[in-house]
Amino acid sequence: MLITLTTDFGVSSPYVAAMKGSLLSTNAHARIVDLTHSIAPQNIRQAAVVLADVTPFFPQGTLHLVVVDPGVGTEREIIYAEFGEQRYLAPDNGVLSYLVRYSRPNFLLKVTESRYWRTAVSNTFHGRDIFAPVAGHLLADTSPNEMGRVTNQMIWLDWPEPHLGTDSATAEVLYIDSFGNVITNLTTAMLRGWLSSAEPLIRIAGREITGLQTTYGQRGAGELIALGDSQGRLEIAVVNGNAAAQLGVEAGDSVQITRKSL
Amino acid sequence: MLITLTTDFGVSSPYVAAMKGSLLSTNAHARIVDLTHSIAPQNIRQAAVVLADVTPFFPQGTLHLVVVDPGVGTEREIIYAEFGEQRYLAPDNGVLSYLVRYSRPNFLLKVTESRYWRTAVSNTFHGRDIFAPVAGHLLADTSPNEMGRVTNQMIWLDWPEPHLGTDSATAEVLYIDSFGNVITNLTTAMLRGWLSSAEPLIRIAGREITGLQTTYGQRGAGELIALGDSQGRLEIAVVNGNAAAQLGVEAGDSVQITRKSL
Amino acid sequence: MLITLTTDFGVSSPYVAAMKGSLLSTNAHARIVDLTHSIAPQNIRQAAVVLADVTPFFPQGTLHLVVVDPGVGTEREIIYAEFGEQRYLAPDNGVLSYLVRYSRPNFLLKVTESRYWRTAVSNTFHGRDIFAPVAGHLLADTSPNEMGRVTNQMIWLDWPEPHLGTDSATAEVLYIDSFGNVITNLTTAMLRGWLSSAEPLIRIAGREITGLQTTYGQRGAGELIALGDSQGRLEIAVVNGNAAAQLGVEAGDSVQITRKSL
Repeated sequence: MLITLTTDFGVSSPYVAAMKGSLLSTNAHARIVDLTHSIAPQNIRQAAVVLADVTPFFPQGTLHLVVVDPGVGTEREIIYAEFGEQRYLAPDNGVLSYLVRYSRPNFLLKVTESRYWRTAVSNTFHGRDIFAPVAGHLLADTSPNEMGRVTNQMIWLDWPEPHLGTDSATAEVLYIDSFGNVITNLTTAMLRGWLSSAEPLIRIAGREITGLQTTYGQRGAGELIALGDSQGRLEIAVVNGNAAAQLGVEAGDSVQITRKSL
Repeated sequence: MLITLTTDFGVSSPYVAAMKGSLLSTNAHARIVDLTHSIAPQNIRQAAVVLADVTPFFPQGTLHLVVVDPGVGTEREIIYAEFGEQRYLAPDNGVLSYLVRYSRPNFLLKVTESRYWRTAVSNTFHGRDIFAPVAGHLLADTSPNEMGRVTNQMIWLDWPEPHLGTDSATAEVLYIDSFGNVITNLTTAMLRGWLSSAEPLIRIAGREITGLQTTYGQRGAGELIALGDSQGRLEIAVVNGNAAAQLGVEAGDSVQITRKSL
Repeated sequence: MLITLTTDFGVSSPYVAAMKGSLLSTNAHARIVDLTHSIAPQNIRQAAVVLADVTPFFPQGTLHLVVVDPGVGTEREIIYAEFGEQRYLAPDNGVLSYLVRYSRPNFLLKVTESRYWRTAVSNTFHGRDIFAPVAGHLLADTSPNEMGRVTNQMIWLDWPEPHLGTDSATAEVLYIDSFGNVITNLTTAMLRGWLSSAEPLIRIAGREITGLQTTYGQRGAGELIALGDSQGRLEIAVVNGNAAAQLGVEAGDSVQITRKSL
């Protein structure tokens, strides 16, 4: 009966509450956890990474409802998916495509059966009128098969891989977290393997960082550092500060790493 | 046992938690949903519209607690009201007066019985000391009649009606949503009836918009558009942008519509 | 089964959801209330005061989980404490040390038993990997004694007392609330006792305020006033405005009070 909500509606938007009301009207027993409502508007990539980061920590069978939906009211489809032990309901726009880093989809379904929707469906608010009631029925153990047709297709976004060359490695900024920490697509495990026993020299936005810390507390306030984030990814941070704002960095920007001669 | 909270305390204010603690201390079974805590401070009109927009989507019998209360500590009264299938507890300052657009009040009561309040009542925080414990007792099925005296009076604010003239129509900005979309008091159903088969020419803040879209996706990013919002009201939006900030528009501002000659 | 969360992760940070997922994976019956996630980053003093203000309003036996943890990944310890009827789990960094204003600790324990933690513990996110699962076990009535060793030591911060002299009184700004109201460490009860029948003349940031109001509504918008806050502390506010921003005041700043000659 556990369901999480991920949207770009903004924190405490009344639209979030309208969705919850619609969900609870369909299924009064839903136990709702806000995953985040602070996805940048229409930022499908940020939502995709956040979902992959956070949803694996939820109990088996949790349903994750995602409404980051720039295509609302157009021909875009709605997808129900099972990845590992978690279940997802989302617009089919690529927002589930980063999950595959952690587990394969076991089950995919295009949600088409309008008898599980609200009677009056608006053009601009499918979160309330379609996603929430469908989620309520899924939580009530209505079989997903009744709600649409099984498919083997969903939209996959291109997720650039870090490149580990002979002399240098290249990573990419995946997203900026709420502290302004810069999260990259390179894991520190990969990085350490590539470095062997060398120290890294990391270049980002014209700045250089030497070495990897294991925690913020190892350096003084205001210092620019690199460390592993809670997911094991290479993170660029300013101790007690906002690295993204200070560096002017955003998702998609490049990070270069070389081995520092000892 | 479902209760929603609407305040102007700000998102994640610890005062919200103090209210929840006080509520749960009175009634440990309360199931709390945050409607919004982002009402602009003391903005009774914004809260009134948001309540009317969102509360009808909740299950029958849900109690909606509203603490947007610039008059706290003065002589203002507290009102319990039933509109349609929903129940409300709020300061009697007009914050429930937009609800009548959707349903008539079935029952009105001035809340006066201090034995249902906290023993120590502060002058500045009735949300925690009066509203929350009263709500806890209401959720426990204590009869509202025990908590005060039935009345047929509550404060009604003046809500300007859109004007549909022969040659032009005038609407008013009701509120700005969290995306900066400009929500007016004119429904697109009314507008379409008035337009007959003509296209609308909409003037707001010295800008002109032609036609009504059905969804954001129909136009390019940055374009100023008009469409129906999720409640069926005329909304002025910038695709992937913030219309209110761009136009410098606020609640109460005027919108003019004429029929565009074909 | 009731648990509150207090962090400096920021409102609706996905890290909050990761903690909740981890907690619910340990104990599916946890009922979670967000106390606040808007503690300024690493602001242990603000968190300490907010906890003391808000947690006493929760039902007996509520567990309050606090993750304001600048020392994560260093040698700092984790403490479980019982103060009055409330239970707390927090880093041992002083964040529980303001609670003693309201009640004595009945029980203190250093949390050391890693078998109650997640198998993989990151260096940067103990909230998810240690605090949340330990909290889940505590909510399941696992005896705290199994989770570590009883102690009589925890870190106490220095909390300056207001000084009530013959001719003048000195208070200190404890914290700024989410409205920009300036909350001091002097109660209005203490202040009134010291004033006897005189009116106060309050000096803060080069400005003077005469008298104590009982509510915001007693003065006009924009006026600088002093009143008792919901906890009975002396509060400096601007009616419908932001006093801290207007005065340039922050936590630790001084407030002088003299008796105004009548």
